[in-house]
Amino acid sequence: MQPGIITIVGAGLIGGSLGLAVKQRGLARIVRGIGRQQASLERARAVGAIDEGFVEPAAALAGAGLVVFCTPVDRIAEQVLAFAPHCSPGTLLTDAGSTKGTIVAAVEDHLPSGIAFVGSHPLAGSEKRGPDHADANLFEGRWTVVTRTPRTDPAALEKIVDFWQAVGARVTIMTPDDHDRALAITSHLPHLLAAALAGILPAELFDLTATGFRDTTRIAAGDPGLWTAICAHNREALLSALVPLDERLRQFRRALENRDWTALESLLVQAKKVRDALGN
Amino acid sequence: MQPGIITIVGAGLIGGSLGLAVKQRGLARIVRGIGRQQASLERARAVGAIDEGFVEPAAALAGAGLVVFCTPVDRIAEQVLAFAPHCSPGTLLTDAGSTKGTIVAAVEDHLPSGIAFVGSHPLAGSEKRGPDHADANLFEGRWTVVTRTPRTDPAALEKIVDFWQAVGARVTIMTPDDHDRALAITSHLPHLLAAALAGILPAELFDLTATGFRDTTRIAAGDPGLWTAICAHNREALLSALVPLDERLRQFRRALENRDWTALESLLVQAKKVRDALGN
Repeated sequence: MQPGIITIVGAGLIGGSLGLAVKQRGLARIVRGIGRQQASLERARAVGAIDEGFVEPAAALAGAGLVVFCTPVDRIAEQVLAFAPHCSPGTLLTDAGSTKGTIVAAVEDHLPSGIAFVGSHPLAGSEKRGPDHADANLFEGRWTVVTRTPRTDPAALEKIVDFWQAVGARVTIMTPDDHDRALAITSHLPHLLAAALAGILPAELFDLTATGFRDTTRIAAGDPGLWTAICAHNREALLSALVPLDERLRQFRRALENRDWTALESLLVQAKKVRDALGN
Repeated sequence: MQPGIITIVGAGLIGGSLGLAVKQRGLARIVRGIGRQQASLERARAVGAIDEGFVEPAAALAGAGLVVFCTPVDRIAEQVLAFAPHCSPGTLLTDAGSTKGTIVAAVEDHLPSGIAFVGSHPLAGSEKRGPDHADANLFEGRWTVVTRTPRTDPAALEKIVDFWQAVGARVTIMTPDDHDRALAITSHLPHLLAAALAGILPAELFDLTATGFRDTTRIAAGDPGLWTAICAHNREALLSALVPLDERLRQFRRALENRDWTALESLLVQAKKVRDALGN
């Protein structure tokens, strides 16, 4: 796929990394960025993530073959619907949002004819933000979920799959709901847990934390606004994911209360097997 | 302090790193290692962590000025009591165990006269094990807790503080119980949480984990036997630490149930403040 012009909406860490990856791999002739602040667009241009920055969307969308929305999940759907009328017929739209059900449902069936949207979620990121942390290899070897519903255009789906593979990602296709249930466990629940643990640490114990505490709570440094929006989008699946976690914590507590060290060690052995299987 | 001979009991990651640090900084003329397996002692010698390896303790203890027990917490007290009669009068004993109350109570008042024990816990480590991962700078800039009780010999305490500072650590002095209550929150509770989260991950979702899940669960790869012993030693403080965590998780659940996004964001903001304050 060589769409000539790729437009990235939101040139932060993800959008900036995508721009760098596209440019380094020669996947487009021009990479345009749309942002709210001229200063961020300048930074994105300075690090080589975009060729041209736009605060006004219309000019940035004209003639683009692919538009990728890399904005916070609570802005994606409204931007897609607002920007689509400015796109030329045949333009493909996708996103990089951490939730899919709410976004895909809000967008599907509301687009001008000739404009297709396919939901995406590259499982890559960082607690850092902004184009200064952009990395051309952010997607290399990572999984990207691309969503399919009964209304997804098969040709558009194929092109979006090709696009993520072209920036180095491995692609798996899921329904938006399956994606959201999976990510509630693999991403959104860990965020709540990390935040819960960081949140109960009294200031007088800051010095007594070592790498274990810091690793376990690292993602709690993520942007609270972004994560609140993710939790709001994926509320039901996240509440469901809390159930097995609560039950597992109860098992740990019971083992401690009963001094059942065999039970405690079994729980730790099983957890280690899973963690070892994940690699680094 | 230049005690001539330092003997390290258990030349794994911590003991091996301590040996390397002592040798690189010229803090002893000879570093001896005591281990159960000749092969591990050979590895420790090969990486330069010890000069001489011993399976039989007596010969390794004779003439040593300082003996550091770097074995699992459930073995330290019995080893201290078993090894102390082989030590020359004036020998200082300390340890590197992750719990302090149980160990110090079991050892204090049961040593031959002229032999002093001071509890230590360097807050440095890794989910890795063995002398091959030893690192001479493991303690550099990290905090080490040294314990003081009404029975602690002040001169011995001062020498142990000097020793940890000499290998690069910053030292804080606490009672064994204060140490255990603090570490229950900063180390043992994070371990249970990481293990609970890793433990509930179904195999079909392994591919859908990204850096967030991996960071949050990294310490769940730690040795289950070691951690069961730590939990057994610090049972009461760990059960107490679970209380505020449960309450915090309940606050997150309530915010989700009530769609109270303001409350959810406040919890995330507060957690981010703590995590940002900890640094990397």
